Amino acid sequence: MDPEAFLDLANQVIKLKMYPYFDVAHSLLCALAVREDLGAGAQAFSRKHPLSCWLSTMLVIFAGGMVANGLLGEPILAPLKNTPQLVIGTVTWYVVFYMPFDVGYKVAKFLPVKVAASAMKEIYRAKKVYDGVSHAAKLYPNAYIIMVIVGTLKGNGAGFTRLVERLIRGAWTPTAMETMQPSFYTKASLVASVIFVLDKKTDLISAPHALVYFGIVIFFVYFKLSSILLGIHDPFVPFENLFCALFMGGIWDSLAKLLGKGQPKEETKDAKKTN
Amino acid sequence: MDPEAFLDLANQVIKLKMYPYFDVAHSLLCALAVREDLGAGAQAFSRKHPLSCWLSTMLVIFAGGMVANGLLGEPILAPLKNTPQLVIGTVTWYVVFYMPFDVGYKVAKFLPVKVAASAMKEIYRAKKVYDGVSHAAKLYPNAYIIMVIVGTLKGNGAGFTRLVERLIRGAWTPTAMETMQPSFYTKASLVASVIFVLDKKTDLISAPHALVYFGIVIFFVYFKLSSILLGIHDPFVPFENLFCALFMGGIWDSLAKLLGKGQPKEETKDAKKTN
Amino acid sequence: MDPEAFLDLANQVIKLKMYPYFDVAHSLLCALAVREDLGAGAQAFSRKHPLSCWLSTMLVIFAGGMVANGLLGEPILAPLKNTPQLVIGTVTWYVVFYMPFDVGYKVAKFLPVKVAASAMKEIYRAKKVYDGVSHAAKLYPNAYIIMVIVGTLKGNGAGFTRLVERLIRGAWTPTAMETMQPSFYTKASLVASVIFVLDKKTDLISAPHALVYFGIVIFFVYFKLSSILLGIHDPFVPFENLFCALFMGGIWDSLAKLLGKGQPKEETKDAKKTN
Repeated sequence: MDPEAFLDLANQVIKLKMYPYFDVAHSLLCALAVREDLGAGAQAFSRKHPLSCWLSTMLVIFAGGMVANGLLGEPILAPLKNTPQLVIGTVTWYVVFYMPFDVGYKVAKFLPVKVAASAMKEIYRAKKVYDGVSHAAKLYPNAYIIMVIVGTLKGNGAGFTRLVERLIRGAWTPTAMETMQPSFYTKASLVASVIFVLDKKTDLISAPHALVYFGIVIFFVYFKLSSILLGIHDPFVPFENLFCALFMGGIWDSLAKLLGKGQPKEETKDAKKTN
Repeated sequence: MDPEAFLDLANQVIKLKMYPYFDVAHSLLCALAVREDLGAGAQAFSRKHPLSCWLSTMLVIFAGGMVANGLLGEPILAPLKNTPQLVIGTVTWYVVFYMPFDVGYKVAKFLPVKVAASAMKEIYRAKKVYDGVSHAAKLYPNAYIIMVIVGTLKGNGAGFTRLVERLIRGAWTPTAMETMQPSFYTKASLVASVIFVLDKKTDLISAPHALVYFGIVIFFVYFKLSSILLGIHDPFVPFENLFCALFMGGIWDSLAKLLGKGQPKEETKDAKKTN
Repeated sequence: MDPEAFLDLANQVIKLKMYPYFDVAHSLLCALAVREDLGAGAQAFSRKHPLSCWLSTMLVIFAGGMVANGLLGEPILAPLKNTPQLVIGTVTWYVVFYMPFDVGYKVAKFLPVKVAASAMKEIYRAKKVYDGVSHAAKLYPNAYIIMVIVGTLKGNGAGFTRLVERLIRGAWTPTAMETMQPSFYTKASLVASVIFVLDKKTDLISAPHALVYFGIVIFFVYFKLSSILLGIHDPFVPFENLFCALFMGGIWDSLAKLLGKGQPKEETKDAKKTN
């Protein structure tokens, strides 16, 4: 592939319209995630508590926007004013939970459908991360950390609203905080946010913007497909282990242990597992 | 009663001033609700934790405004700037919890007092639902769902802040989410919000606005009094069962069960109970 | 000390710059508080969950501003735009948790260091309470209660975000609500807020503003040092007991008990302990 054509493709990806196909893919996977989170009793739950089921699905679909708005002092409900997206979300929710003979769920779980929807959702995610970083950069042009936080939250909002989402369904799982065991999506959104901030605010990245964006899209889609098809779940782990060993005390702890004057053994033995 | 006089009455109801009598009735019932929620240890609790008791009562009194503000990006504390209402709330709280020989509580529990206060509170509720819908309509003229959500929250805010209110008192009851078992007040506020939205935004309702408003007030007061005096708690249940049977999978589930290829029996048997 | 020189000193205290030394002291004590809250497993936790550890430390450091912003409809993340303070917070966090051979923690725990940092933090606290009251007074010039609430939250924000802070670390302790057992810092911030409001909005306090401010600083520092060095933890208790006996039913309960027609004995026996 010659570079010219590649740049052309990148420019087309950056201008992709999200409505309606990408919205459908995103809503579908969100509704599936809610259904899977409910486990075996999902169907019975959806019959007994349709309101709760609908509210929690909407929260998952609009999570990124709502959390980011909440933290930036903007109206939390504002994402719901996008009526077409709300209609898509409601229809998808209905299809996944209430179709006769569970047809909707079975189709959505069918591998080719799921793979296509997942790939589209990752393209959507890249766009949301980028929009989050841009939005925060407009509000606070010098606060890099706010840009990174907003980008990450827009990229994987559902991870951070999981506790509230489950609470709406009457379940409370305080130990399932995303901050304790960040998922691959959170880490990937964090890395993407950092790259977008570097691209936007510094001269460290000399590639054209479209290429940076396209690279992130490819990275998201590639690892999502690896995860579905090959079962590779977190390519960040080795880097984290290295980083933690160097900067988060790993090496010093081992040294202190060797010298016999560090903290007791049972504290250090799980020190190499990272967050 | 001739229609002229009826319309006149409706026009007077719509212009009723809430301050101070309706505020007193609302605060009184809120303080009573907190006291009853505390159960047998209410008086001991109010002696040991007056601050916590006062804060949670204020949260119940101002719940609707606070939740709606929080979701619309407006200051959550703003409702507290209404000093007269705050004074009324504090005095009522004091009367219900701390009067010598518990006189205040006993008077408030006296049936005629309670019936009068409840009727007034329902008139207040209708006004709050209407104000919520109008306020949201001003902010987002095309987002019907936001109008309905804000109207419902303003109508029964205390239901949705219950978890926080109890948390202020050191109790945590995650399964008591309003979304899981919406109370009659939530459902009634939801229906009223939908009617107000239809009245405001469409031509489907041809009756004059004052009559629509008055009808909702009568509906609220009538069912509140039925609930206190006759023990009828939820007139919506039959409609919900019908709706769920038709649209939320009820009929299809039965059909699938008959055909012997639906979900297992233990999942469907409680499917007819609605949210 | 002659009054002239005293007023001069007060005027200098009011103009003290907080950056960078007071920020360092504040961040240091916040990081120490997080580490102590984690208990014996603090070091192991910081190795396994650095992200969670950093986020919860930042939440403690910026708690006052974040909570006050959240309640006043301003962006919750806004305090993070103060990049120098964020850098100080991060460096302090790193020093307390990750220094080789735990040098940072040991130095921070060394009594003279801790005493100096604590005294500086109390000066910082007085400034934050004053800033909170002033900020709220600008937004709501007549809402005294909002000024007091914002002043208190700015003074001891970390107390009120403790639940969220622990939740970020995967622990959930709903009974540890600050409102149930307000700490000395909360009570002192409350009293200071009330005094600042009286000073600002009424003529009841005739002393010059600088003296009032200086008096509060001395009061904060004095009791903090008493608490560290002498073990006096809450000088408010006798006043609270008196207040509760007079106004929160204490006397009437005793009277009712004497007359044998009050609430049962097991309810009143702990009535004298205050919130």
